[in-house]
Amino acid sequence: MTPSDLTAFKEAFRRHAAGVAVITALTPDGKAVGFTATSLASLSAVPPMATFNMARSASAWPAIADTDRVVIHILGARNRAVAEIMSRDASQRFVGDHWHTGPYGLPVLNDVSAWMAGRIVGRLPLHNNAVVAVQIEEGGLGPEDEALLYFQREYRLLGENA
Amino acid sequence: MTPSDLTAFKEAFRRHAAGVAVITALTPDGKAVGFTATSLASLSAVPPMATFNMARSASAWPAIADTDRVVIHILGARNRAVAEIMSRDASQRFVGDHWHTGPYGLPVLNDVSAWMAGRIVGRLPLHNNAVVAVQIEEGGLGPEDEALLYFQREYRLLGENA
Repeated sequence: MTPSDLTAFKEAFRRHAAGVAVITALTPDGKAVGFTATSLASLSAVPPMATFNMARSASAWPAIADTDRVVIHILGARNRAVAEIMSRDASQRFVGDHWHTGPYGLPVLNDVSAWMAGRIVGRLPLHNNAVVAVQIEEGGLGPEDEALLYFQREYRLLGENA
Repeated sequence: MTPSDLTAFKEAFRRHAAGVAVITALTPDGKAVGFTATSLASLSAVPPMATFNMARSASAWPAIADTDRVVIHILGARNRAVAEIMSRDASQRFVGDHWHTGPYGLPVLNDVSAWMAGRIVGRLPLHNNAVVAVQIEEGGLGPEDEALLYFQREYRLLGENA
C-alpha cells in the first residue's frame, strides 16, 4: 500500500465492520437535514461525548458547520430501511413518518436503539472532511434490538461470539 | 437521558457495535506501545485518512501525544487473542511473537486483516480525551477474514445480511 494506492486503502476499510448511525440537524432556516454514518465513536463517558466524521461536500455539511446542535441515532436491525432512506436523495430523507420533532425542534428518528441530542464542542477540518465532536445533553433508549452493521458495502447483522 | 445520566449514555453506546482495531506507536526512546480501539473510523479516501479516539489517561497517550507516526491495524476474527493482549496489562502487550518491526521501526502486528502506517495530521483534545487523525502513507493487507466486532462488551462475529 502506497500513498497513492487508493484501492488498497479502500479495501482495508472495507475489512473494518462498523455500526450504523444517523446524524440529524437543522439548517439556519429550520429545515431538517441528516445522513447515515458509519464513523460514530464514543469519545468519553464523563462528560458524555461522541464523534463522527463527514465530507465537507456532503449535503448536510452547511447545516452541521453552522449549527450548535445535532442528534445522534444508533440504529438496530429493525432500522435498516431508515439507514437507506437517510443515505439516498437528500431531498427525500424527511419525507414520511419515520421521524418526529424532538428537543430544540431537532428531527429525531422513530423507534431507534438510542438517540442522543447534544451540542457540537469541536470540529477538526482536514482537507475536504471534518471530525465533529458532540457533548450529549439528553436522549432516550428504544426497545433493545440486534445491532445493524455495515461491512463490505452491505448491511449485516451480528453473529455469534468470537 | 440527562447530562448526568451516565448509565443511559453507556447503555446507548453498548447498543452501538464496532469493529476492532489496534493502534501502535513508539515512545521517544523507542519502546513499543499500543492499545485496542473500537473508535477507528475512515475520515477520507483522498487523501487516505482515518481517526481514532482515546483517553489522555491511557498508558499509550504520552507516546501518541509525542510522536508523528502510528500504525492502525484492522482486526479479523483470527486476531481475537491479539485484541485481548493489547487491552490487558500495558507492560505485557509486546511480550511474544505476535508482532514485528515495520516501517520507521514501528511495531506491526502479524497476520491482521490490514495494517496502515501513517502520520498524525491532527489532534483534537477535549476534556480528558482526544481525537487523533492520521494520514495513511503505507500498509498491507492480510488474508481475508471475517470481521471482529465488539458489542455489549463481548467480541462477536458478523452474521447474515440485514
